[in-house]
Amino acid sequence: MKLFTIGPVEMYPSTKIIRDKGFVHFRSNEFSEIVNFSLSKLSSLLGNSVKNSLIYLSASGTAAMEATVENCMDDNDKALVINGGAFGHRFCELLKYHNIRFDSIDLKWNEELTKEHLLPYENKDYTSLFVNIHETHTGQLYDIKMLSDFCKRNNMYFIVDAISAFLADEYDMEKYGVDLTIISSQKGLCLSPGCAFVSFSKKMIDKINSKDKVSSKYFDFKDYLINIPRGQTPYTPPVCIMYELQDMLNIIEREGGKDGRLRNVKAKCEYFRKKAKEIGLKIPNYPLSNMLTPVEFDDDTNAYDVIQVLKDKYKIFVNPCGGDMANKLLRVSHIGNTTTDDIDNLIEKLQLSINEVKEKELIYDRK
Amino acid sequence: MKLFTIGPVEMYPSTKIIRDKGFVHFRSNEFSEIVNFSLSKLSSLLGNSVKNSLIYLSASGTAAMEATVENCMDDNDKALVINGGAFGHRFCELLKYHNIRFDSIDLKWNEELTKEHLLPYENKDYTSLFVNIHETHTGQLYDIKMLSDFCKRNNMYFIVDAISAFLADEYDMEKYGVDLTIISSQKGLCLSPGCAFVSFSKKMIDKINSKDKVSSKYFDFKDYLINIPRGQTPYTPPVCIMYELQDMLNIIEREGGKDGRLRNVKAKCEYFRKKAKEIGLKIPNYPLSNMLTPVEFDDDTNAYDVIQVLKDKYKIFVNPCGGDMANKLLRVSHIGNTTTDDIDNLIEKLQLSINEVKEKELIYDRK
Repeated sequence: MKLFTIGPVEMYPSTKIIRDKGFVHFRSNEFSEIVNFSLSKLSSLLGNSVKNSLIYLSASGTAAMEATVENCMDDNDKALVINGGAFGHRFCELLKYHNIRFDSIDLKWNEELTKEHLLPYENKDYTSLFVNIHETHTGQLYDIKMLSDFCKRNNMYFIVDAISAFLADEYDMEKYGVDLTIISSQKGLCLSPGCAFVSFSKKMIDKINSKDKVSSKYFDFKDYLINIPRGQTPYTPPVCIMYELQDMLNIIEREGGKDGRLRNVKAKCEYFRKKAKEIGLKIPNYPLSNMLTPVEFDDDTNAYDVIQVLKDKYKIFVNPCGGDMANKLLRVSHIGNTTTDDIDNLIEKLQLSINEVKEKELIYDRK
Repeated sequence: MKLFTIGPVEMYPSTKIIRDKGFVHFRSNEFSEIVNFSLSKLSSLLGNSVKNSLIYLSASGTAAMEATVENCMDDNDKALVINGGAFGHRFCELLKYHNIRFDSIDLKWNEELTKEHLLPYENKDYTSLFVNIHETHTGQLYDIKMLSDFCKRNNMYFIVDAISAFLADEYDMEKYGVDLTIISSQKGLCLSPGCAFVSFSKKMIDKINSKDKVSSKYFDFKDYLINIPRGQTPYTPPVCIMYELQDMLNIIEREGGKDGRLRNVKAKCEYFRKKAKEIGLKIPNYPLSNMLTPVEFDDDTNAYDVIQVLKDKYKIFVNPCGGDMANKLLRVSHIGNTTTDDIDNLIEKLQLSINEVKEKELIYDRK
């Protein structure tokens, strides 16, 4: 069994068995120390030097997206959303759900976000930009410099879901003036799913602290910010994932820190893309994250069927795309504990699966 | 290191290393099958035969408590809360936060809940009873039959947080007409923290489906209920915990199912209490859950200090009590993977720790 999926991904052996070494109870100084140490390292990987500005929730990434809307937006705000796929759309839905005014830049399939898209929104009354910097649904990586400059020019909060960009693509909160970053455990960090992290700029912390009431108490960032200096959370934290995090941060350190990690992910990504092109696979032309590669299929090959053969016959998991592109696209992730040997095997089995699906479809056509 | 804490607890070796065997991606039939199979077994342990009535959230138990308030109560409702400690108080806070009308039966420390407490609330306009059937804060186990009869007589929804009663004390939703039960992964199930389960009666599902809008989309039970028949969740689930659950359900089956499990927990609980009394420890007189034993200290011995010595010197973790009783009470859990040998060791080290604390306090008094 091998996961080339987008999250959870193939975990590292030492992370997988971390529970076996035992763990302390979370209401203890020992646990607080682990948390403080790990969060400070993680903050530094995020490029955020503000002290006690990183919180963690026992919840999925979507929960952190919603909590961000609840904590960081109010009736006086108006958001602009880059809506280039399912996760951009999710931000729109969440803003709508919470009655926050917003407009969205809706990208069509295969459409690259450019500065022309932003022009109509310059010098308007938008207070915050919401973006999934890597739109996981399509693989498009937006130009963070362009969006950062836009936010600075227009004095907007820069709110980034970096769930599938962090530790795959270059990312630095202070360099790009990011006010809030959402990440989650099961993507670039290769941990068990179930923990979301949110990192804030000083300006964003002030805004959060000025907000009167959040829709759900469980999502009240203020409570988390009060507890985090002593490494604690208002409710039971995902204790074991924090042990996994500690292990993974050590792995990243041994890889040469953020730069080393990014280099390795990029190398695997480029290796896959080269091999994929060699067997004639089609990869979209828009700018791509190094986190995953979308593979596009013509009408004669159903992407979803390929995924099923790959899984059932060869025990290799890649992601479908979902929505309109479910039969057209599959997605291969590069962030997990996979090697070039694994990629060679994936390419070989992908080719076999495609052939099998094509043959079946030919037979079906003849009937 | 040994955990006699209330959750997370000492996990079983096979559960701890389950990730090492590999896991499938969650958007697959294979994962759906695991979920459906496990949830159906878990439903049966809860005594609920309604199909597809058990959902799971990537969140802590408190999140499920809040989601229950959000999904199951509205402006027409009025709740009655048994408030006998920190978790009863939490229900009160959550109801207040969401502007739901409620009254509470506030128990004093050491006060047993009796039918006299319920008398003033008979034949009133209450629509729901909220209770932590085992108030984890004090260890008091309320009389479920008495509360069940009260709800039936008064035509009230019976909403039970069984987080620290399930798999420790006898519990059966249909036998006692329970409409909603909250449990979480890290208590009786001995799994990693980060997953909460909510089980509904048919009547409660109807009420949930009639509710217009929930405060947070992430907590909308309707979305979970729609997805659960195919073993799926609206957002990324705690995949690995679902693998742990499968393993633990097998362990419970090998123990002789629910009855066998309850017998074993009870035996450990009684063994501890007998040994504790032998060394002169004081255990409260109110009805206790088998999940934990509270140990009361006189003014000459600070409970919190005892806990620290036990942890620092002997690497054994028990729980403090928190709040007013922080220096008076410690709590020892009986639900984890601990043996009578472990209990013997705990008792020995507890005695040594108490002596050490007493000596220090004597020296301090003399100064």
